[in-house]
Amino acid sequence: MALPSSTYPRRLLPLFLGLFQGALLLFFALFVIYDEPSAQAEDTSLVANQVYSTFPFFQDIQVMLVVGLGLLLTFLPRYGFSALTHNFLLLNFSMQWALVLQGLLHHFHHGQIHLDLHKLLISEFAAVTVLISVGAILGRASPCQLLIMATCEIPIYLASEWVIVTCLGVLDVGGTITIHVFSCYFGLGVSKALFRATQQPLHPKETPTTSSDLMSLMGTLILWVFWPSFVAVLCQPGDAQHRAILNTLLAMSASALTTVVASSLLERDGKLSPGHLQNGSLAGGVAIGVVADMAMPPVAALALGSLSAVVCVLGFRFLTPLLRRKLTLHDQCGIHNLHGLPGILGTAASVVAVLVASKDPSGSQPSQLSPAGGNASEVVEGQRWGRGVGGQALCQAAGLAVAIGASLLAGLLSGAALRLPCLARPPERLCFDDSLYFRIQDQAESPGPDSSAEEGALALKEQV
Amino acid sequence: MALPSSTYPRRLLPLFLGLFQGALLLFFALFVIYDEPSAQAEDTSLVANQVYSTFPFFQDIQVMLVVGLGLLLTFLPRYGFSALTHNFLLLNFSMQWALVLQGLLHHFHHGQIHLDLHKLLISEFAAVTVLISVGAILGRASPCQLLIMATCEIPIYLASEWVIVTCLGVLDVGGTITIHVFSCYFGLGVSKALFRATQQPLHPKETPTTSSDLMSLMGTLILWVFWPSFVAVLCQPGDAQHRAILNTLLAMSASALTTVVASSLLERDGKLSPGHLQNGSLAGGVAIGVVADMAMPPVAALALGSLSAVVCVLGFRFLTPLLRRKLTLHDQCGIHNLHGLPGILGTAASVVAVLVASKDPSGSQPSQLSPAGGNASEVVEGQRWGRGVGGQALCQAAGLAVAIGASLLAGLLSGAALRLPCLARPPERLCFDDSLYFRIQDQAESPGPDSSAEEGALALKEQV
Amino acid sequence: MALPSSTYPRRLLPLFLGLFQGALLLFFALFVIYDEPSAQAEDTSLVANQVYSTFPFFQDIQVMLVVGLGLLLTFLPRYGFSALTHNFLLLNFSMQWALVLQGLLHHFHHGQIHLDLHKLLISEFAAVTVLISVGAILGRASPCQLLIMATCEIPIYLASEWVIVTCLGVLDVGGTITIHVFSCYFGLGVSKALFRATQQPLHPKETPTTSSDLMSLMGTLILWVFWPSFVAVLCQPGDAQHRAILNTLLAMSASALTTVVASSLLERDGKLSPGHLQNGSLAGGVAIGVVADMAMPPVAALALGSLSAVVCVLGFRFLTPLLRRKLTLHDQCGIHNLHGLPGILGTAASVVAVLVASKDPSGSQPSQLSPAGGNASEVVEGQRWGRGVGGQALCQAAGLAVAIGASLLAGLLSGAALRLPCLARPPERLCFDDSLYFRIQDQAESPGPDSSAEEGALALKEQV
Repeated sequence: MALPSSTYPRRLLPLFLGLFQGALLLFFALFVIYDEPSAQAEDTSLVANQVYSTFPFFQDIQVMLVVGLGLLLTFLPRYGFSALTHNFLLLNFSMQWALVLQGLLHHFHHGQIHLDLHKLLISEFAAVTVLISVGAILGRASPCQLLIMATCEIPIYLASEWVIVTCLGVLDVGGTITIHVFSCYFGLGVSKALFRATQQPLHPKETPTTSSDLMSLMGTLILWVFWPSFVAVLCQPGDAQHRAILNTLLAMSASALTTVVASSLLERDGKLSPGHLQNGSLAGGVAIGVVADMAMPPVAALALGSLSAVVCVLGFRFLTPLLRRKLTLHDQCGIHNLHGLPGILGTAASVVAVLVASKDPSGSQPSQLSPAGGNASEVVEGQRWGRGVGGQALCQAAGLAVAIGASLLAGLLSGAALRLPCLARPPERLCFDDSLYFRIQDQAESPGPDSSAEEGALALKEQV
Repeated sequence: MALPSSTYPRRLLPLFLGLFQGALLLFFALFVIYDEPSAQAEDTSLVANQVYSTFPFFQDIQVMLVVGLGLLLTFLPRYGFSALTHNFLLLNFSMQWALVLQGLLHHFHHGQIHLDLHKLLISEFAAVTVLISVGAILGRASPCQLLIMATCEIPIYLASEWVIVTCLGVLDVGGTITIHVFSCYFGLGVSKALFRATQQPLHPKETPTTSSDLMSLMGTLILWVFWPSFVAVLCQPGDAQHRAILNTLLAMSASALTTVVASSLLERDGKLSPGHLQNGSLAGGVAIGVVADMAMPPVAALALGSLSAVVCVLGFRFLTPLLRRKLTLHDQCGIHNLHGLPGILGTAASVVAVLVASKDPSGSQPSQLSPAGGNASEVVEGQRWGRGVGGQALCQAAGLAVAIGASLLAGLLSGAALRLPCLARPPERLCFDDSLYFRIQDQAESPGPDSSAEEGALALKEQV
Repeated sequence: MALPSSTYPRRLLPLFLGLFQGALLLFFALFVIYDEPSAQAEDTSLVANQVYSTFPFFQDIQVMLVVGLGLLLTFLPRYGFSALTHNFLLLNFSMQWALVLQGLLHHFHHGQIHLDLHKLLISEFAAVTVLISVGAILGRASPCQLLIMATCEIPIYLASEWVIVTCLGVLDVGGTITIHVFSCYFGLGVSKALFRATQQPLHPKETPTTSSDLMSLMGTLILWVFWPSFVAVLCQPGDAQHRAILNTLLAMSASALTTVVASSLLERDGKLSPGHLQNGSLAGGVAIGVVADMAMPPVAALALGSLSAVVCVLGFRFLTPLLRRKLTLHDQCGIHNLHGLPGILGTAASVVAVLVASKDPSGSQPSQLSPAGGNASEVVEGQRWGRGVGGQALCQAAGLAVAIGASLLAGLLSGAALRLPCLARPPERLCFDDSLYFRIQDQAESPGPDSSAEEGALALKEQV
């Protein structure tokens, strides 16, 4: 079981990351500063209130990404340590990379970049796309490949987000289109280009065990709890934010229940599938993001949550096997079912919400439509064009088309780049195994009494 | 090890849940709306501040119920996935059901129900009662039985809470009487009626392992950390809330230390029992709820925390075995020791606190007694009756009596209903096993190299 | 495998803790009260705002200490339950003990001690020192020894903190010098005096398994997420706190990436070491504490984070083995690498920051230097002395010297006290084993089908 250690690719990871850290330091040294401390007492109080109103949301989102999403990915029983660490590494790398690119793109013409919590939050949102896309190829890609993928994805995300939100004026406060749909099809594109037409066989280490399923469910529950913070953090404080929180809570709750119904009806014996639970419970949160702060009745949030859970479970049951057979499309975590389908459903709901709101007598004011937070200025710009309600509905659909088209194309190209031999894609028999990347206690290396019987038994079987 | 799959009860769960979701959608469509967005800027700022002051507490409570309580219940080594999922399912179902009932009961005469975060929070509190009661029959009941139990418990809780808080004017800001005592005796009633006089033998899968005990302790620690939010969320902002937080922190800290003392003295060899730690550390939080915002010195909170930990550990050591032998009363998680006994102790403390506060020169103003938050209006009503201090003390005791009486009776009736054969109570040999409800990787189904050695060894033993 | 149960030391733990709880109750009854509820409405709103601005930070810190730090210590595969419980016990004991001592020392001349959330927070910070120091002797000390260590450490910490912050006017808002450096050298002193010159052999139960490493990494991630709250909680609200949060986020992010680079370069095969990841990712947070709210550009935070991660990983790779061989110094968790070296690095950075800020035209106002929160008054005092910028730089260095000197000396003395035979240091062969302190399911005690195969296999190997 001694692993072949080709020295060259092993050194690529620290080299790449080290150079990136150096460049980051240089960039920060030259261009990034903090705001001057304000002299007036009122300003101090204003800053303090901004911190108190944003920081708890920010921390919730950090917990979601670092702990919740990390745990969700630990369903591969012998790949948990890698999943958790790679998720953590990619979050930090992508966040820093997004910070650099955003600084260059949006703020460079002001000379110096003033760093604040809001800019970090926006970069964190960019990093989320990478963490989602990785799900399509989890366990079969090396850390170097993942980093290259992040390097490609972040600028394309920023460009696509700029087109969708700023140019098209799409309303998408929770990032359903810009984050979830985009990252899903980017990940699928990468997977398609990376694995091409080769059918990936079921790997013996790919099947979850009870304890790895339990850890993964824990991750789902943590994501489920904190999801309202993710959707509502960029909403305008006040009614819009309050409504976004309530809509998200209702949608997530309906998702959880409907997942049980759908999974139980689809599986033989009526037994529930852990994978359905782990993903379906979150589908409502993906779908609700695009309409969370719009003027719509509470029942719409419940219905959307239920519907997206059904779509997600159906996707796992029928669409994923179909895509694997017909298109040889490999989707390890089922991101198409959790992020793609509910995202499209949510966009459709936003079109309906925009159209209905115009006929609603109480919804005749345009203020009811306006989203908030980071996107407020761009929407104002969009409305300056005098676009009517039908125009806004068209734009929502156009935004979806842009997100899918751009991400698929970019994903295919990025995936082709990941085939470079120097990126050290692991051989099939070493996939899904922590011991390829970590100095983890392993039976073959140190057969002491401390290695668990489980590993011992597995090793024995493999030696036979 | 092939499980018998009678198709009919398997279909009952999705049928019941699906119908419930449909009815919920109909109810929301007809009656539930959001508040109109306010036009004035001051109102917007007011709503924003309400969100910022409530939402962090709300999220803490969500973490407690979904992650903390879920993990606490995973001490059964082969039932962790079921415990976590059923807890999650019941929370969502009960919360939605409480939302419907509360809408019908309290707000229907206003025509439309205005949904807000506070109403969701109140429904969440109602759902807590179900999650606690389940502890008495954990592992031996089917999901259908649990849902029927929740269906029965929520309306009775709402009625009993109305009698205790609104009619009797009982002061109980942390839900010690209305939630903890009520749910404990409801659960015991259900257990008694469900299992009748049959002594439940020790099931081989019932004994915790080191790793399941560790997960359960994690749950305890998460509950321990966030408990102050649970007690203080409904307090009046300002001094009362500050005092409630401090009192809870002191009581929980004293509980943690005293549990170690008590457990160490009671067990042979002075070894600590994991079960004592998992429950005793939280006993102080249960007891302090009813007095948390009252005018009492900090030492009272410490003493109450210590005392309730002692009572909890003594209950585990002596009372639970006694109840099992004499009354054939089955209490799987020991909810009587964690919620019943400390709850009664806390109520006794509240009687003393009410009586002492009147003799205290600084406590002569009635404002010192007044609780806060959701109950404020009812208490004012209670004081309109001109009830003296002695009357308030009597009411506290009467509230306890009502909670115990109503819950025991309702629990016995509900438990009898759970004996309906169609609810598919699992046979004894299949209890405490995830594989009855979930498509969990199991040795007998797919004997591949990926199944863990542990399960393999167990399966082997069972086949022998 | 029957453990020898000498009854006497078994009774020492409950006796000691019980007496302590009694004394605490007496102390609280005599001296500690709450503030009178304020009559004015403005005061109520002020208290409410203080609660809302402090409580979320406080909860974050509680999660860090109880859940995060507890999990981080569970890397010993058969000692997880003990690590988690002892951490929890020590936190509560030390917090209460610090509350008593602080009450006696600082507030006794006012007659009565007014308890509030801020005082609890300060006591919690004192307790952190104990939790860190324990890392040096984790697994080889009895609970009684740990409690005696806490009893010694808290008063010395309070004295040293008084000298460093109040007398010397050292700026250290995140506790880098007063908490991290102090507790590190105290722990090393205890370890040296406790184990003397005996080389501790590698214990068979000392090597982490995959699953215990995964749990420990979870702890790291939780600490990583909430670290900004720990650093910023005592900062002045407004710009200083905002800057402290940003600096900490940048430093932690740089640490995470640099740890991967450093660990990958140092290990053969380029594989990452779990221990490096678990500690290095947090090193930036330790180092940034002392400069977090100072006027320095963002690049400095990034550079400090990177550098401290390098130092931490190098320490694990070279310094810890060296200290073990040359000085027979035993450091189980590597606290010297996580708390000692980055703490010293951070102090050096603070000297530079103080010196540079004076030459910076925008930094000429002394307000830029002033830290905040709890220490604000002391710093004003320090500046009353008319100390120049060079003087402040000297004081920072002097503070470091005081922290190291006092803690080493006190640690050596405390460690000598821990050698008292009555404190029941566990014999070598029973170290790192939960079953010494807990009634944990163990193969030898109840060989039922419920004990896991892993334990069974281990027990078999040990019996052979």
